[in-house]
Amino acid sequence: MRPVAIVGIGKTAFGAFPDRDLRSLAVEAGQKCLADANVSPSQVEAFHLGNFAGPSFVGQNHLAPYVAGALGISGAPCTRFEAACASSGSAFAHAVAAVAAGIHDLVLVCGVEKMTSQSTAKVAEILAGAGDMSGEGRVGATFPALFAMIARRHMFQYGTTREHLSAVAVKNHANGAKNPQAHMRKVITMEQALAGKPISEPLTVYDCSLISDGAAAVMLAPLDRALEFTSKAVRILGVAQTSDHVALDSKEDITTFRAVRAAGEKAYKMSGLGPADIQFAELHDCFTIAEIIASEDLGFVAKGQGGPYALSGATSLTGERPINTSGGLKSKGHPVGATGVAQLCDIAMQIRGEAGDRQLARNQIGLAQNLGGSGATAVVTILGAA
Amino acid sequence: MRPVAIVGIGKTAFGAFPDRDLRSLAVEAGQKCLADANVSPSQVEAFHLGNFAGPSFVGQNHLAPYVAGALGISGAPCTRFEAACASSGSAFAHAVAAVAAGIHDLVLVCGVEKMTSQSTAKVAEILAGAGDMSGEGRVGATFPALFAMIARRHMFQYGTTREHLSAVAVKNHANGAKNPQAHMRKVITMEQALAGKPISEPLTVYDCSLISDGAAAVMLAPLDRALEFTSKAVRILGVAQTSDHVALDSKEDITTFRAVRAAGEKAYKMSGLGPADIQFAELHDCFTIAEIIASEDLGFVAKGQGGPYALSGATSLTGERPINTSGGLKSKGHPVGATGVAQLCDIAMQIRGEAGDRQLARNQIGLAQNLGGSGATAVVTILGAA
Repeated sequence: MRPVAIVGIGKTAFGAFPDRDLRSLAVEAGQKCLADANVSPSQVEAFHLGNFAGPSFVGQNHLAPYVAGALGISGAPCTRFEAACASSGSAFAHAVAAVAAGIHDLVLVCGVEKMTSQSTAKVAEILAGAGDMSGEGRVGATFPALFAMIARRHMFQYGTTREHLSAVAVKNHANGAKNPQAHMRKVITMEQALAGKPISEPLTVYDCSLISDGAAAVMLAPLDRALEFTSKAVRILGVAQTSDHVALDSKEDITTFRAVRAAGEKAYKMSGLGPADIQFAELHDCFTIAEIIASEDLGFVAKGQGGPYALSGATSLTGERPINTSGGLKSKGHPVGATGVAQLCDIAMQIRGEAGDRQLARNQIGLAQNLGGSGATAVVTILGAA
Repeated sequence: MRPVAIVGIGKTAFGAFPDRDLRSLAVEAGQKCLADANVSPSQVEAFHLGNFAGPSFVGQNHLAPYVAGALGISGAPCTRFEAACASSGSAFAHAVAAVAAGIHDLVLVCGVEKMTSQSTAKVAEILAGAGDMSGEGRVGATFPALFAMIARRHMFQYGTTREHLSAVAVKNHANGAKNPQAHMRKVITMEQALAGKPISEPLTVYDCSLISDGAAAVMLAPLDRALEFTSKAVRILGVAQTSDHVALDSKEDITTFRAVRAAGEKAYKMSGLGPADIQFAELHDCFTIAEIIASEDLGFVAKGQGGPYALSGATSLTGERPINTSGGLKSKGHPVGATGVAQLCDIAMQIRGEAGDRQLARNQIGLAQNLGGSGATAVVTILGAA
């Protein structure tokens, strides 16, 4: 297997864009990425599209050639990958494997979702399809309800508090306020977070990520060809996708995500690094409790210590290991199919020194963790300066 | 790249099964395949699921871990591939690449669709999502209408007749009648086919494939390990996936599918074979005109000669190059996400000498062609005796 690099990145702003359709978002991200990598559409050897529910959100399926055609990509295999909110993380993991194995040199990976054209109730119903509709979904358990159960159990088992959850929200809103591409650029206080409108006890509106439109793209190439395209290549040090049961009641323990632990172990092994080497991370904070659990599952802290870790300030922009400098799904926004690749763009921006007001000094090794459903899919990627 | 083999196959019957859900169909095919390959779920290193529109047909998304969990596959990356009616062909092509490159040894590829729980009108609407909903779909052009335009143009340009189309239907029904797993085991006469109820002129009900439930699976392994699992290994001689524009009006010529031609050329090149070497084939006869065009695009006959070729009997069970000995999508049935892998199972059954009343004597080299939408995705695979 040969080393692989990200030689271009491109993102749309995340937000609610009533005048934009799914394809125009994906095309904007793809074109920005092609321009950033100095690659023409005819050079692209394969196109991987991550999308969760375009057919349900906007009525269009067969999305990979649909987007690729508009980008001017012709003849190359164009494939849509669906793995719930880890759809574009999965598209990326398969693309890295194809380049590492020498099957392709230039692969464009894009993630996209257009969610805001549906009512919030309809969005919740579509998202519930990432869980077990024959069980959870049938009894009305939408994702806020599932993660509320997870949060309650984490509180019971480890003493996690409302303040711990709110600390994640306050930090991510502070970071997102500095991100010009974030959906919600609004600083919130601990008092506001604690007084948030209840959604599903103990989660309030400030514990839940946003319903957003957006797209993101990265261009992959073999590391030994990276200089042909960019002077700012980012190396993929490790990547792994793993799976677990879909239904929450099939899991042995709902305070940890087995797939995240397994993907983390594999990515660490591939990179030769350990948790202590990770300088900063983008973690999948679909709900505040998910960031806390991810920081434990990836070994940043011991099991049960994710809450105090967040409250301590260690994960803030000026802390020992900043988490979600982009604002995370909570503040940057969460167009679900775009999120996996957007995290990688955000890590790459830090490594390239392009993170503006959020720029870190220790920016050489970053980790991205992308979660599907309530943990049935996980993708963990470790990126480093090339 | 190392040679890859199919070491196990498994299929459900195709039909309308009101008492079966999507997962139970996929699990049946997967379990039959695991048993046939003598592989346990814990040995499976990756699970690829082809499915077009489970979320729209049955409301369940995140289908790869959903099915894998029920099969007892744990920890392995589980990914859903969507490429319209070529979804499982695409899942297969990516799996072959992963095994060929040495990324995995044992990959289970499954295709599934559960369609008959929706009304025919709703099915047509969901299928239309494989075309361009912003253009074709918006003006009400469902797939029978799109393929009717294709047929009309082929008639105008090459003199193709109603009899040519009906010859495909008569042959495929004759073959399907001998297939115990076919959806519609009904012999029809040329007179019946010519007098079929109009669906979209010039296509009648006998020119259109069926709306079906069903699943199919194949197990892949490196060829040099095949004997560990089976004495009936089938070798993958060539495989390629390519893409083209989604909208019919974006194509230069609607009487040929550029993606099929390109995938065919790549698969031939990889195998070192040409059209003359192909002894039999499963072609994607979503409509009768599609089989005629595929036989031309793959070089079995010159452009425009697909109709006379079908009418001549050359493609019947006793002809020079039998096509769709399974009955094809027309008679075997077309659960869209299952079709690509089901074609491979049917080719493998011929090579293994397990095709019963349809068994061919010249059964060493077969080709499968899987089409997505009106030609935006194509997957061509050439299989041979190991």
